[in-house]
Order: sequence, then structure tokens, then C-alpha cells
Amino acid sequence: MAALLTAGGWDMGEWLDAFRAARPTCPIHQHGADAYDPASIRYALAWKPPHGVLASLPNLEVIFSLGAGVDGILGDPELPDLPIVRLIDDDLTYRMGEWVTLQVLTHFRKALAYQEHQRAHRWVEERQPAAGAVRVGLLGYGVLAQHSADILVKLGFEVCAWSRTEKDTDVTLHVGEEGLEHFLAVTDILVVLLPLTDATRHIVNADLIAKLPQDGAVGPFLINAGRGALQNEADVLAALQSGTLKGASLDVFETEPLPEDSPMWDAPNLIITPHVAAVSDPVAVTRYVAKQMEAYESGAPLTNLVQRGRGY
Amino acid sequence: MAALLTAGGWDMGEWLDAFRAARPTCPIHQHGADAYDPASIRYALAWKPPHGVLASLPNLEVIFSLGAGVDGILGDPELPDLPIVRLIDDDLTYRMGEWVTLQVLTHFRKALAYQEHQRAHRWVEERQPAAGAVRVGLLGYGVLAQHSADILVKLGFEVCAWSRTEKDTDVTLHVGEEGLEHFLAVTDILVVLLPLTDATRHIVNADLIAKLPQDGAVGPFLINAGRGALQNEADVLAALQSGTLKGASLDVFETEPLPEDSPMWDAPNLIITPHVAAVSDPVAVTRYVAKQMEAYESGAPLTNLVQRGRGY
Repeated sequence: MAALLTAGGWDMGEWLDAFRAARPTCPIHQHGADAYDPASIRYALAWKPPHGVLASLPNLEVIFSLGAGVDGILGDPELPDLPIVRLIDDDLTYRMGEWVTLQVLTHFRKALAYQEHQRAHRWVEERQPAAGAVRVGLLGYGVLAQHSADILVKLGFEVCAWSRTEKDTDVTLHVGEEGLEHFLAVTDILVVLLPLTDATRHIVNADLIAKLPQDGAVGPFLINAGRGALQNEADVLAALQSGTLKGASLDVFETEPLPEDSPMWDAPNLIITPHVAAVSDPVAVTRYVAKQMEAYESGAPLTNLVQRGRGY
Repeated sequence: MAALLTAGGWDMGEWLDAFRAARPTCPIHQHGADAYDPASIRYALAWKPPHGVLASLPNLEVIFSLGAGVDGILGDPELPDLPIVRLIDDDLTYRMGEWVTLQVLTHFRKALAYQEHQRAHRWVEERQPAAGAVRVGLLGYGVLAQHSADILVKLGFEVCAWSRTEKDTDVTLHVGEEGLEHFLAVTDILVVLLPLTDATRHIVNADLIAKLPQDGAVGPFLINAGRGALQNEADVLAALQSGTLKGASLDVFETEPLPEDSPMWDAPNLIITPHVAAVSDPVAVTRYVAKQMEAYESGAPLTNLVQRGRGY
């Protein structure tokens, strides 16, 4: 029995090498490159698999996601009804924490304004509130957001979060549909780390942005490292241009790569990174997958399973 | 008995108001603005006092520093032999933690390179090691540096520190003259938070920079939020130009404000901020001073006293 790697757009060589090092006893094939017997495939390692590929494997038992989000897998209309293991990996979690912290501090500490002063050779002090006067709100409160929250608390920010369901946490948690309005009303820096589901598509739109306070110590600022389809990009652009948003950092976009002629590139006070906030590291991820496979084969239950009903 | 405020170059009004709110029972005068009886002054609140001012106060009992560093007070050749209370304030500590974290992450996560890509409308991924593969070294390990270390550890960096004397800490500590070489040899991102003394003046020079590793996962990068005179600026500039330093962030300079025609403004991969890393907040600082005064008047010992022998 073998594994199949299907990850459109990624450098596959690195992933094959890493998996072979992590689990030398399990042959692995690459979809679209190797000839393989579909009946031999027990495991799939997938990131945005072409529709129908997973359905073509009659003996497939488990699907491992190679990224934090599973919308690329759940979007396959022919997806077989098999367990999908979500990627929860310390390396990914730490990388996301770095990126979120960097973006929060960049806007909060007015780094773009200081860069302009530097270019003009100007020694000018900007007014700077204390972190304790600033409310950072995490929209979505999974593993990645919880780690970011820990760092932001350590930095002295007033941190709160919104989650679909109740969670045990030290930060102020706003829950469900009815908690969202209040969460937005007390959020100066909004950090979006939601999964992409039917319920969250375009959740960051003009309506939502209008609910962020205009009278906070700073902001409002928007930071999105979830998925591009969480945002209505035209609305974000308009809010930056009108000043409703004082700044934003986006790692994800409705179309990726962001087209060269997109007006987003030149939007005021917008920081763009090319979907690199938390890049899956082949070595770390394939070790995680190999460990889960070993546990599964020894009869232990799979962990971190996706719940299809909720979409993540 | 009254207090005297002497803080060259600062907006005094805010400080007077804040002190009066914090300690309404103690009259306060402003040196250079109010007429006052030198014999009435029991306390000085000082930041870079003009030489001789403190010596002109016959009944002065305590000098309170209004900034984290006391080199501006100890530099007064007529400084009377009185207790000097150092400023240790949470607000200042947190602000410094924000600035240091922002600068470390900016270089580590290649923010300047991504900005260039953005300006050119280029969707390009930069290679990014994990924080755990990167060594951040804190040169100087006082209260400010210890808080920054806590945040950097939380972010996943390998953190070590150098201190003149032994200290109880969780991070790897290199101590004294003989510990410095090894500390530098294992530091990819050097964060300078030393006090300025005769022993530390120009400690960041070409010799020191040459001892930082060229084969680390990133860097070497230099971050200085201590004092400008800790660095030989010409050496830092040369190291940035030659690529010996891959980047730097400086909040402090040998001459402040940095002259408009300084070549530092345009040095490659250098981020300049105008001595704003941790700005003393008048409300927080005068509260701290008032609290110390009250304790002192009730017969309790002063805390956080400067030791003149070591220069901080």
C-alpha cells in the first residue's frame, strides 16, 4: 500500500524527499507525474487536489491536508466520504504568530509613517499610545489564533477573540452570531484567522468594516492571514481609500497570485505579502503525517479530524 | 519644600501637569522658566539637566531620572553626591518590548524585501527559516531586555543574553568580558540594550560586528535602542554598505536629531526611528516618582538606586 501526493502548484520534489525520509517504509507517488496503480493508494497527502483525483482511489483510507485550511479539499465535488486529518503543526503555528505579531506592531507603531520620514531625512516623532490602550480582536480562535493571542497578551495589548463556539481561554471571548457585533465594536486591530466556509465567505465586507470603532486609540486596522475569499477585496480597497480603515495587512487574496494590474498593490497603508504568513515546511509536515499514519496503523484513533458539517 | 523639573528639550507643560496631578501637595517649578528659591528644592526630576543646576540646590535630597538611562545625569561634572533613582516603569518596559519585537520580526521576516516586491507588483516568495533556527542575542540584560527576551522566547526564537554580572534567568546567559566573544559568535540578531558608560562607549564597532556569524540562518542584523554613543556610526554604515551587516534598526544616534545630511538616512537595509522606541509617558513616570517620594517621606528606603561606580 502506498501514498499519493497531490499538491497543485507546489515544488513536489522537496515534499517527496521529506516524506520518504519521514516514512521510508511507505512508497509515495506524485499525481500527474508518476504512473501508479490507483488501487495501491491507501493515503493521500493533499493540497488543492484536482477534482476527482481522490475519488479515483478505490482503497483510499485517509486524506491528510498539507496546509492549515481544508477548503481546497472540501471544495472537491467528488470528495469521497473518508476521514480528513487537519494539519496542526507547531512550525506552522509559530510562523503564523510571527506574521500576525509583525503586522500588528507595524501598524500600531506607525512603521510606514516612520519610513516616509526616513526617506525625507526627517526626525519626527509620532504620537504613540500604550499597547494597553489598544484592543486587538481575533476573528476566529483556532490553534493559530490562540498562539498569536498569547504573544499579543505578552506585548501588553488588550486581546479579545470571536469564536463560533464556546472555548476555554483567558482572553475575552465573544461567541456566535450574537457575539459578533459587540466583538467588532471593541476591536481596534482586527486579525482574521477564520477557516473559509459558506458561512465565512466575504465576511470581511463594507458592513463589517463599518462596525469597527473610529474612535479607538489607533486604527481601525485589518489583518487577514486566513483566506482571500474571506474578504470582499473591493470593499477593503474602498475602506483604505476613504480612510475608514487606517491600514491593513493582507497575506491572502481572492485571486492568487494577485494580478499585476490589481489596484490592491498601490492601496494606501496596505501591506501585501504573497501568501507566506505560515508556509508549510515539508520536513515538519511530513513528520506529522508519518506520526499520524503510524498511530493509525497501530490501531489508535486519528486526531485533528475535520468535521465536514461545519466546514473545517 | 518643592520639586524642580529640569528636562532639556522636552515639552515641560505636560510633565508639570502630570506631576501636579500625581502629587498635588508638592509644589513644582520648572528650571529656566519659573523663578524659584534654590533652597526650597528638595527633589529634582531630571533628564539631561544643564551642568551645575543640580549643584545649585543646597537642600536637594533626591534626584529622579525621567528616562531609562542615567548617562545624561551622570555626565554633569558638578553632580552632587546624592541618591539618584532610576526609572523602572512598566509602560517604558512594554514600549521597548514592542519596538524590539517589531525590529527583530521586520528583518527576520524580510519585510523590506516584500515591500520592494509590492512596489513592483511582484508576487514573490522569499525563503523563510523557522524562528527556532535563529539566535537572538541581547547585549545588556536589564529590566527592558528581560521583558523583550520573554516575548522573543514566546515567538520561538533561540534567545541568549550577555550581562556584565551573573543573573538568574531562563535564557542562556554569557557573562563578563570573557563571555562576550562566545555570545557574539552565536548571535544572528544582536539587540543592544546596554547603559552608556565609559566601558560601553562605541562597543558596537567594526571589531564587534566582525565577530557576528556570517553563516547563520539569517543575518547578522543589528538592533540598537540603547544609546547612540554605544555605536561607532561610521563602522555600522560601512558594515551595511559592505553587506557584513544584512540589516539594522537604530533608534539612537551619536548626534540627535540625526542631521539631515547624515549618510545614515539612506544606508541600505537600515530602519531609522527618531529615539521613540520607549518614550517616557509623563503620567506613568510622575506617578512612579510620586510613589517613591511618598515612601521616602514615610521613612522607607528608596528603590532602584543608581550605583555610580558602575555608571548605571
